[in-house]
Amino acid sequence: MTLNLTILNGPNLNLLGEREPEIYGSTSLRDVEQACNAYVKKAGINLTFLQSNHEGVLVDWIQDARLIADALIINPAGYSFHSGAIFDAMKIFSGPIIELHISNIHARDDLHRHSKLSAAATGVICGLGTYGYIAAIQAAAHLATAKNS
Amino acid sequence: MTLNLTILNGPNLNLLGEREPEIYGSTSLRDVEQACNAYVKKAGINLTFLQSNHEGVLVDWIQDARLIADALIINPAGYSFHSGAIFDAMKIFSGPIIELHISNIHARDDLHRHSKLSAAATGVICGLGTYGYIAAIQAAAHLATAKNS
Amino acid sequence: MTLNLTILNGPNLNLLGEREPEIYGSTSLRDVEQACNAYVKKAGINLTFLQSNHEGVLVDWIQDARLIADALIINPAGYSFHSGAIFDAMKIFSGPIIELHISNIHARDDLHRHSKLSAAATGVICGLGTYGYIAAIQAAAHLATAKNS
Amino acid sequence: MTLNLTILNGPNLNLLGEREPEIYGSTSLRDVEQACNAYVKKAGINLTFLQSNHEGVLVDWIQDARLIADALIINPAGYSFHSGAIFDAMKIFSGPIIELHISNIHARDDLHRHSKLSAAATGVICGLGTYGYIAAIQAAAHLATAKNS
Amino acid sequence: MTLNLTILNGPNLNLLGEREPEIYGSTSLRDVEQACNAYVKKAGINLTFLQSNHEGVLVDWIQDARLIADALIINPAGYSFHSGAIFDAMKIFSGPIIELHISNIHARDDLHRHSKLSAAATGVICGLGTYGYIAAIQAAAHLATAKNS
Amino acid sequence: MTLNLTILNGPNLNLLGEREPEIYGSTSLRDVEQACNAYVKKAGINLTFLQSNHEGVLVDWIQDARLIADALIINPAGYSFHSGAIFDAMKIFSGPIIELHISNIHARDDLHRHSKLSAAATGVICGLGTYGYIAAIQAAAHLATAKNS
Amino acid sequence: MTLNLTILNGPNLNLLGEREPEIYGSTSLRDVEQACNAYVKKAGINLTFLQSNHEGVLVDWIQDARLIADALIINPAGYSFHSGAIFDAMKIFSGPIIELHISNIHARDDLHRHSKLSAAATGVICGLGTYGYIAAIQAAAHLATAKNS
Amino acid sequence: MTLNLTILNGPNLNLLGEREPEIYGSTSLRDVEQACNAYVKKAGINLTFLQSNHEGVLVDWIQDARLIADALIINPAGYSFHSGAIFDAMKIFSGPIIELHISNIHARDDLHRHSKLSAAATGVICGLGTYGYIAAIQAAAHLATAKNS
Amino acid sequence: MTLNLTILNGPNLNLLGEREPEIYGSTSLRDVEQACNAYVKKAGINLTFLQSNHEGVLVDWIQDARLIADALIINPAGYSFHSGAIFDAMKIFSGPIIELHISNIHARDDLHRHSKLSAAATGVICGLGTYGYIAAIQAAAHLATAKNS
Amino acid sequence: MTLNLTILNGPNLNLLGEREPEIYGSTSLRDVEQACNAYVKKAGINLTFLQSNHEGVLVDWIQDARLIADALIINPAGYSFHSGAIFDAMKIFSGPIIELHISNIHARDDLHRHSKLSAAATGVICGLGTYGYIAAIQAAAHLATAKNS
Amino acid sequence: MTLNLTILNGPNLNLLGEREPEIYGSTSLRDVEQACNAYVKKAGINLTFLQSNHEGVLVDWIQDARLIADALIINPAGYSFHSGAIFDAMKIFSGPIIELHISNIHARDDLHRHSKLSAAATGVICGLGTYGYIAAIQAAAHLATAKNS
Amino acid sequence: MTLNLTILNGPNLNLLGEREPEIYGSTSLRDVEQACNAYVKKAGINLTFLQSNHEGVLVDWIQDARLIADALIINPAGYSFHSGAIFDAMKIFSGPIIELHISNIHARDDLHRHSKLSAAATGVICGLGTYGYIAAIQAAAHLATAKNS
Repeated sequence: MTLNLTILNGPNLNLLGEREPEIYGSTSLRDVEQACNAYVKKAGINLTFLQSNHEGVLVDWIQDARLIADALIINPAGYSFHSGAIFDAMKIFSGPIIELHISNIHARDDLHRHSKLSAAATGVICGLGTYGYIAAIQAAAHLATAKNS
Repeated sequence: MTLNLTILNGPNLNLLGEREPEIYGSTSLRDVEQACNAYVKKAGINLTFLQSNHEGVLVDWIQDARLIADALIINPAGYSFHSGAIFDAMKIFSGPIIELHISNIHARDDLHRHSKLSAAATGVICGLGTYGYIAAIQAAAHLATAKNS
Repeated sequence: MTLNLTILNGPNLNLLGEREPEIYGSTSLRDVEQACNAYVKKAGINLTFLQSNHEGVLVDWIQDARLIADALIINPAGYSFHSGAIFDAMKIFSGPIIELHISNIHARDDLHRHSKLSAAATGVICGLGTYGYIAAIQAAAHLATAKNS
Repeated sequence: MTLNLTILNGPNLNLLGEREPEIYGSTSLRDVEQACNAYVKKAGINLTFLQSNHEGVLVDWIQDARLIADALIINPAGYSFHSGAIFDAMKIFSGPIIELHISNIHARDDLHRHSKLSAAATGVICGLGTYGYIAAIQAAAHLATAKNS
Repeated sequence: MTLNLTILNGPNLNLLGEREPEIYGSTSLRDVEQACNAYVKKAGINLTFLQSNHEGVLVDWIQDARLIADALIINPAGYSFHSGAIFDAMKIFSGPIIELHISNIHARDDLHRHSKLSAAATGVICGLGTYGYIAAIQAAAHLATAKNS
Repeated sequence: MTLNLTILNGPNLNLLGEREPEIYGSTSLRDVEQACNAYVKKAGINLTFLQSNHEGVLVDWIQDARLIADALIINPAGYSFHSGAIFDAMKIFSGPIIELHISNIHARDDLHRHSKLSAAATGVICGLGTYGYIAAIQAAAHLATAKNS
Repeated sequence: MTLNLTILNGPNLNLLGEREPEIYGSTSLRDVEQACNAYVKKAGINLTFLQSNHEGVLVDWIQDARLIADALIINPAGYSFHSGAIFDAMKIFSGPIIELHISNIHARDDLHRHSKLSAAATGVICGLGTYGYIAAIQAAAHLATAKNS
Repeated sequence: MTLNLTILNGPNLNLLGEREPEIYGSTSLRDVEQACNAYVKKAGINLTFLQSNHEGVLVDWIQDARLIADALIINPAGYSFHSGAIFDAMKIFSGPIIELHISNIHARDDLHRHSKLSAAATGVICGLGTYGYIAAIQAAAHLATAKNS
Repeated sequence: MTLNLTILNGPNLNLLGEREPEIYGSTSLRDVEQACNAYVKKAGINLTFLQSNHEGVLVDWIQDARLIADALIINPAGYSFHSGAIFDAMKIFSGPIIELHISNIHARDDLHRHSKLSAAATGVICGLGTYGYIAAIQAAAHLATAKNS
Repeated sequence: MTLNLTILNGPNLNLLGEREPEIYGSTSLRDVEQACNAYVKKAGINLTFLQSNHEGVLVDWIQDARLIADALIINPAGYSFHSGAIFDAMKIFSGPIIELHISNIHARDDLHRHSKLSAAATGVICGLGTYGYIAAIQAAAHLATAKNS
Repeated sequence: MTLNLTILNGPNLNLLGEREPEIYGSTSLRDVEQACNAYVKKAGINLTFLQSNHEGVLVDWIQDARLIADALIINPAGYSFHSGAIFDAMKIFSGPIIELHISNIHARDDLHRHSKLSAAATGVICGLGTYGYIAAIQAAAHLATAKNS
Repeated sequence: MTLNLTILNGPNLNLLGEREPEIYGSTSLRDVEQACNAYVKKAGINLTFLQSNHEGVLVDWIQDARLIADALIINPAGYSFHSGAIFDAMKIFSGPIIELHISNIHARDDLHRHSKLSAAATGVICGLGTYGYIAAIQAAAHLATAKNS
């Protein structure tokens, strides 16, 4: 059975590759999307890849994922630290959720060291650069398959 | 004189009845809306009943309520804990405001125990289940009438 | 079947109407009691209405309510913020409990903004003035009936 | 016009002189009462001097003082640090209130360094030993007279 | 010489066996008292066994114990977490004091994890169920005897 | 060379002049915009002046400003205190940023005393009333010119 | 034997009577000094009465008081809350020290509610208005005499 | 059936009797071990009595106890306050665990007042001096027997 | 009418241009003073420009400003974070006060991120470099004129 | 070139599969090691797989890894929350380090929610169950290769 | 080349030997100065040795030291805990700075345990008694020489 | 009489010179040991110089030092911040203890700014680089001699 996967990207990730490249690298979000598509094609996974700067839109998409996705990957970026709305939406999603951060947020300053959302995720991956997207897809596929089997 | 009342529902409440039913019950938001409409019909109250996952939309609607509503009921859900924007909008509304929570948030974990918004509300009702909507309509009507008389 | 209800009022509420009337209004506790009695008479509810300045007496009465009441309403006033004894007594009461505050305590200073007791209540109503007593009776009746049916 | 003054002593003060005499001295509460009576006799002040270990009784007495006293002196002892009930009662008393501590509580450990009640008092006197009772009577008389004149 | 021992039980312990039996067991306080009496009879100890929901009464009894008891055991229950009055009374008692909790309070939530009173006790026993009463009697007897010899 | 400047106004500022006029004055945002336009016309500056209640829209506009503006002025209002998304967007903008508050937020209550965003701004101006907009334009022009020269 | 007494007044007290008269009254520091002089003349006390805005000068004067004063009264005003230098100087003074505040600082905001210096004082008097100076002289005289006798 | 019991002693307890004897008494750990052996001999209990300064060794021994002991007594000494490793090991042990402290740690300074490990213990005994070892053996035997029967 | 303005500079600002020039720039305080004088000459403002390393001297000067200045600008530097004495002096000054920082203090470490004095200022300007002095003069002039007109 | 990889497992992980299997699953550490060996065999990676309950041994092994490993994976278990020694050792290792947790620690209680060590890691993976070991090997190989190329 | 060294002593150190001699010893500051002079004479160091109770004077002297000293030793005493002004002045001094405390401040109470100034010093020496002055001179000479060579 | 001195080095100090040389310098621990040996040889001191990564070993060695050393120098490195076991061992050592840090820990981040162990040391030296070892030997010799004479 084909696995359906949604990847959501939060605020300012549309500028990936332009923003503080010494931290986030020079790969653009388009590059990341293409790499993900290349990967899922071989793995027989259907992928929906989205980005928004709007907290409410991210909430909408997490709700939508309930109908179309077996697993969810979310890079919540600047909404990681306080969003009760995204937290609640993640709680409602019944499949596995991988929270993803490109950089190692635990090495940042006090206000950005701990994601409030992690408690609503199944697993968390951070600090692996854009390779983290591939790792997250593999993990999500593994968890969703283990769950369904 | 007919009382005009606006009820605003925050993020993820569109999934009421599907989300953690052991906490929030199995009544849907549609059911709640119908019960409210049935009640206000008998009481001669005009009701506007809305839901959004978007913080900015909720701010817009609170601003709109200034023109069309004598009293406001808001279930801010996941925006309860940090939204300075909704807080400020509530401060501007001059009529009575009832903040409403279906479950008893004071019995939740530390991050979700205290609503930042309550300080900008006239009164707060929580833990009464979906019956809280009826109680809130009664209270809002009572306060608006007392104020106007 | 007739519903039995106990309303407990904590310290200094015997001076209601005399104390800071700009916050608490000029209605006396006697007035409140009469309004409650008038209401329950029509609703077919048996009401016990009590006030004490003594924490231990309030604990005794909550224990007594286990034998004579289907639901409990408590306005704990100055014992709201630290009383472990009342908290534990409320935990033992098996029916619904409405915690009631006449003013909106969430808009007060840091030491009086959060009631420790709320986590042991079924629901909380605050900021509705003395009308809150009627709202609390309705809510308690609703919850007790829903529970028993 | 004769001034009416109430002095309330909180828990364990009945053992003054026996308890940690290196801190509180060897004067008994009976000695203190006699010294106060001797002083007020000369000053033409009516004095009510009371002690209780019960928080509720202290609340009752503060309420009673509203009817019989122009000024209030309270040594709240072990209830200084958390009693919301005594705090509220003091807020209702309209005359001047002197909060009194025999020892310098500000030099004690963290849990007993700051009295919660001080914010509801007119003035505070501490660290003067049992002489503090005379100083408090003088201050209460001064404030009540200044107020009345 | 016969040892005199006082055991004080705080608020809601009169309902032991009825309250949350999955935590506190189904033994009633009457059962505990009988077991204690059976034990002290064999050990040649005079036992006073009391319970009150009133903080002030507990203070009175601790003061009384100064005259009639060589050692004191106190299960302060809901007054454990903030009572300055009981703390001060315990400080005045010159014999050994065992603070007793039936359940392991250190495994509870943040507000009920640490007893303020422990710093005024000689020793603390918790988590042993109602057997803790026997252990506390043995410990109090041991300490009082060691002290007196 | 003509300087391009963007001014962004956050939630509820569209009601400026109506909201708590004793704090924020009676000037409307339209009045402010006209005064700004009058000023920049003389100074040879191109001005984009926008307002939104939506956090995501403000993020979009800050991103847009990267392409069209040499400097940015932002009055983040209710999003000042927690928005990680706006913070990150400001970090990406390479020109000078003036954060602007009409009232002196440092004199407000604890929750609204410190803007989280200030650490991502070049400079901060607050408490100057609506005159602050003119001061901010001057400062932004000064900084952008100094930077470019 | 004549008692020698030093009264030190901290920063901005030279403006007493002009500064926030609704809090501090309209009596000037000159008026206070004259009242004190009138009082000590009758009581046979030598009085040194000083004011400075300079922390270091206050430290110098406390050191000087070691040589010329039996007791010290200090109204540290704005240096109350953090001055380690004045704290240490007070620690070195061997006679009784009365810390004095005209208003009730315990009713002020969090940053100004607790004086750091109180732990180095013998006693503290606050909230009695300028009458507090007379009360402090009496208390200092009482303590110094009791000590010397 | 014979009961198997392990007693583990943490860092520096090998110096018991030499270290701060005014707090810990002059009994050596060898004395304690002999007293324990004398007691268990009469009670028909097999006892393993160990001491180590090494956190990892204590973890090893707790794991070993899973195979050879029905109950565990641990005096974790200096590892009480932060050891996540011992905490986790205690969580895995399925029999009753008594945490033991010779002195009353709750009367110590802030950093040493609360043991992190207590939440993983069945019960806690502290402040009974070296008699606590006998009390702990009795309690462990009681709990293990109650459990097995 | 000519406007009288006082600018006060706190500790170490006499070394401006020499101290950490990568943060504070290479402009000396003499340069700043000359630029200010040039500006006020054209604007018809009388300027007093002062610097001191002494907290007490700054307090004296703020008090002096009451007699000679319509508005006050203060760069409190190292006294920003704890000075109760300067805070109180600013409270007494009745004209507008601009608090000025050359760098953006909100981007500094936790101990230097928030000025205690801002709550006593009318407005705050920071992060504009030495240009901030000109902006502050303009703002002070604007506020003083608006106030007087 | 062959990649050399070291995997370190902290305290109590030798009991994996026996400890709280509802959280950690029933796979043993031996199973995990075999799965890792099977994976690296195919990938041409040399693997050293170790476990210890001793903090110092883990420090030794991290130091050893500097000589023999291109990348390091560490599951620090109970030493995650406070170990300054492991933190410093990780800081010295120059290759990529993946910190690994089998369960989602961010969903645990306050004391175990945040690893102190994460700030010294390159990336963190948690909540993926024992599959996390494979994901960590892939990530470490990716990072080490990317680094070396 | 001759080394120039400045030693600054903060408030109340002029009373060294008189103040709490059980903590600070009976050596006077004059004795310390003579011992330092004897030492530097042999070592070929020029020494300036100063004391002031005034924070501003200490700031002036640190600034002066920039012109005349290769290294600085400062015993900031009561200004250690909050002085932003001395902190900033130390930051400007480019040579090595030794912060010196006669007693071990880390063993004092919470308010006096950590010097705010240490982060601006090169090194810190405390708890060595007045011998610390000699150790500080040696260290300063070592660091200044190492730096210059 | 010959002085016996033990120097203990904590975790990762065996890598001194390799670890972050821009902070800790390029001197190896072997170099430090040789410099110490050269120094003590001239001074007639017997030196034991040890290093371990194991907390328990350090505890053992501190205990051993009781029998063989007159004074102790300890550089606890990564165990400085939480080790209750080393803290207790230091408390038992009766001779002088110098705690030593090569870098200035007070200038590090919040988690590594304050050593928990300092309260159990006689004196602390930090920030002097490896020269600190010589300074510590001199100080320990001074204190031990002063004590013994």
